[in-house]
Order: sequence, then structure tokens, then C-alpha cells
Amino acid sequence: MERHRDQEFEQIRRTLLRMGGLVERQIREAMQALVERDSARAQAVIRADDEVDQLQKEIDGQCSRMLALQQPMAIDLRFLVATMKIATDLERMGDSAVNVAQAVEILNQDAPLKPYIDLPRLALITQEMVRDSLDSFVRRDASAALEVCRRDDEVDGLYKQLFRELVTYMAEDSKNITRALHLLLIARNFERIADHATNVSEDVIFFVEGRDIRHSAGESGD
Amino acid sequence: MERHRDQEFEQIRRTLLRMGGLVERQIREAMQALVERDSARAQAVIRADDEVDQLQKEIDGQCSRMLALQQPMAIDLRFLVATMKIATDLERMGDSAVNVAQAVEILNQDAPLKPYIDLPRLALITQEMVRDSLDSFVRRDASAALEVCRRDDEVDGLYKQLFRELVTYMAEDSKNITRALHLLLIARNFERIADHATNVSEDVIFFVEGRDIRHSAGESGD
Repeated sequence: MERHRDQEFEQIRRTLLRMGGLVERQIREAMQALVERDSARAQAVIRADDEVDQLQKEIDGQCSRMLALQQPMAIDLRFLVATMKIATDLERMGDSAVNVAQAVEILNQDAPLKPYIDLPRLALITQEMVRDSLDSFVRRDASAALEVCRRDDEVDGLYKQLFRELVTYMAEDSKNITRALHLLLIARNFERIADHATNVSEDVIFFVEGRDIRHSAGESGD
Repeated sequence: MERHRDQEFEQIRRTLLRMGGLVERQIREAMQALVERDSARAQAVIRADDEVDQLQKEIDGQCSRMLALQQPMAIDLRFLVATMKIATDLERMGDSAVNVAQAVEILNQDAPLKPYIDLPRLALITQEMVRDSLDSFVRRDASAALEVCRRDDEVDGLYKQLFRELVTYMAEDSKNITRALHLLLIARNFERIADHATNVSEDVIFFVEGRDIRHSAGESGD
């Protein structure tokens, strides 16, 4: 019984990591599609979303079954609750990567607006946050998770800088407006992915330490 | 024991509805703050967010306790899982209302760009979706929940229309750009609130019918 239980938990953990790996790839490929103006790559990101959605359903089903059949207590219960929450955030990160890929497809129909320097930097930090938040879950490392939460300010700073820069482009020439808007939308989606990575990290801290750090520092908005 | 259990479930349901009521008010007040250019109202929306966040923590705590202490099966288990998910979506709707309020504060420092006709319409549909999704949970009405999901297309259509209109304003005069961008951000946040209302409705259907309708119609991105 005990052994069967452990196998079930291991199975859930593996499904979550598989989902995490897919979403990490979606994010990375969406950025590559932008930088290399590669529409085929963008389409692959969009196609991958079905599998991500399917994995979330699987995780929800597996966790619900464990909650119903076992009587999980303390850390096991927190593991199941955290896993369902993390899967929700991963699924929405996947949606954001799809939004980026769709914007890339539109941008690729036109000449590039400018070299995308800050945007890949924003995307890179975001990717690192996603990876580190999932690693902190695997290693049950609350301090690594807290480190991810701290990086969110860096992302917000970069986003604001990009926002100002893109407004300047729009003001210079009205022909830039649509392209600049799509770039802004892309930046916004990476910023949202970083928010979700922060949510994941908060869930990891709840899972490891059994305390809820959300909203403890007067945080507002998303 | 049975009676105590029922009381606990009733308590959770009441906390969720209190949270829902607060978030509905945040959304309504954020729109009013925009239309009436009322910064005090916008600040009230921002302040209300702490209580919303606090209620989410309470709900997570109550549900986790019930999962640990009881052995909830079938509909009780689905109720607890759905409640935690709905609370997560409500909390993020609150964040979006805060984003709107913050944009309103910035917009109020300048002359109005144009009469906000489509935006209040978008906000109104969004509010109705939030209210109807919560009602469908209370009444355990899966078909009402499905109706909410269907309205999401209407919201997406309005958002796209607003997007095009605001691009036109930006192109007409570069002095319009910053204000138009803030209005676009506001529209985007209402569109996200509608997405969350759709998520809530999907959770209601899962709760009532025990089936998972997410991602079943080739839906992509948010």
C-alpha cells in the first residue's frame, strides 16, 4: 500500500516535470521564433499547446484521485495542492507563449522594426525564472524559490523600460505603431510568464515550509 | 460529525462568496473610476486588494484543512478542489481590477482622449460574466456556466475592435499614444477578467458534472 502510494506520487511528479519541460521549450522557442523571424517555429509553439493542456488535465485527475483514495496529511497534502496550482500556472505560461508566437507570425509579415535587444534579455530572465522555480520544487528548496520571487522586480523594470522605448518609436513614425504594439504585447506576455513563475515559487515555499508567503509584503497588481 | 462537516462546507462557501462580492465590486468601481475620472474611487479599488488576498489565503487554509481532516469523496472533493481554483481566479481578477485602477490614475492626470463607449460595454459584459459564473457555482448550474464560456468570444471581438480603434487614434496624433496605450491596457485587463470568469465556469462544470471541459474545443492562448 505504502509502496503503491509512493509510486503514484512519483508518477505525478514526473507528469508535472514533463509538462514543465514542454512549457520551458514553448517559451524558449517563441523567443527564438521572434529573433530569427521563424514562422515555422512559431507554429510549433502553438501546436505544442494541446499536449500541455492534456498534461494539465492528467495532473488534475491524478491529484484528485490521490486526494480521494488516500488520506494525505501534512507534506503529502501540500504536495498535491501545490502540484495542482503549479500545473495551472504552467498551463497559463503555455498560453502566454502561444500569444507570443501568434504575435511573431504577424510581425514576420512585415520588415523588422528594430534589433530586439531588450526583449531577448527579458525573455531570458523569464526562462531562468521558470526553470529555477521548477528546480526549487524538485529539490524542495525554499530559499531558491524565494530567490525567483526577488527577480520579478528586475523583469518589471525591464518591461517599463521597453514600454517607454516602444512609445518613442510609435511617436517617431506612425508606420511603426502596429509593429511596436505587437512587440509590447510580446513583452507583456513575458512579464506575465515571470509572474506565473513567481506564483510557482510561492507554491513551492508553501509546499516545503507549510507557510503562505503570498501577499505578505504589500504586493499589488500582477 | 456530519453536522460539523456541513457547517465547515457552508463556512467555505460563504468565504468564497464574500471574496466574489468584493472582486465584483472592484471590477465595477474600476470602470466607474474610469468613466467618471474619479481617482479616489480608483484608490479604493487598489486598497480593497489586501482584503481579497487575505480571503484567498483563508479559503486555501479552510479547504486544505478539510482535505486533511475529512476524507472527502466525489462531489465534496470536487467542491474543495473547485473552490481553491475559483479563489485563485478571483484573486487574479482583483489584480486586473487593480491594474485598471492604476491606469485610471495615470489617465486622470491628462485630458480625456475620447468618449469611452466600447470600453464600458466591454467592462459590463465582463462584470456579467463574473457574476453569472459565481451564480452558476451557487446554484450548481452547469448549463448557466457553459453560457458564460460562450460569451468569451463576444469579449474577444470587442477587444479586437477597440485595439484597431486605438491604433487609429495613435496614428492620427502622436500626442494620443500614451493615453491610447493606457486605454488598451485597460481593455486588455477586462479581457483577462473575462478569461478568468471562463475558467471559473469551467471549474463549476467540473464540480457539478465531474467532467473536465477545458481545452476540449481546440481553444488556444488567452
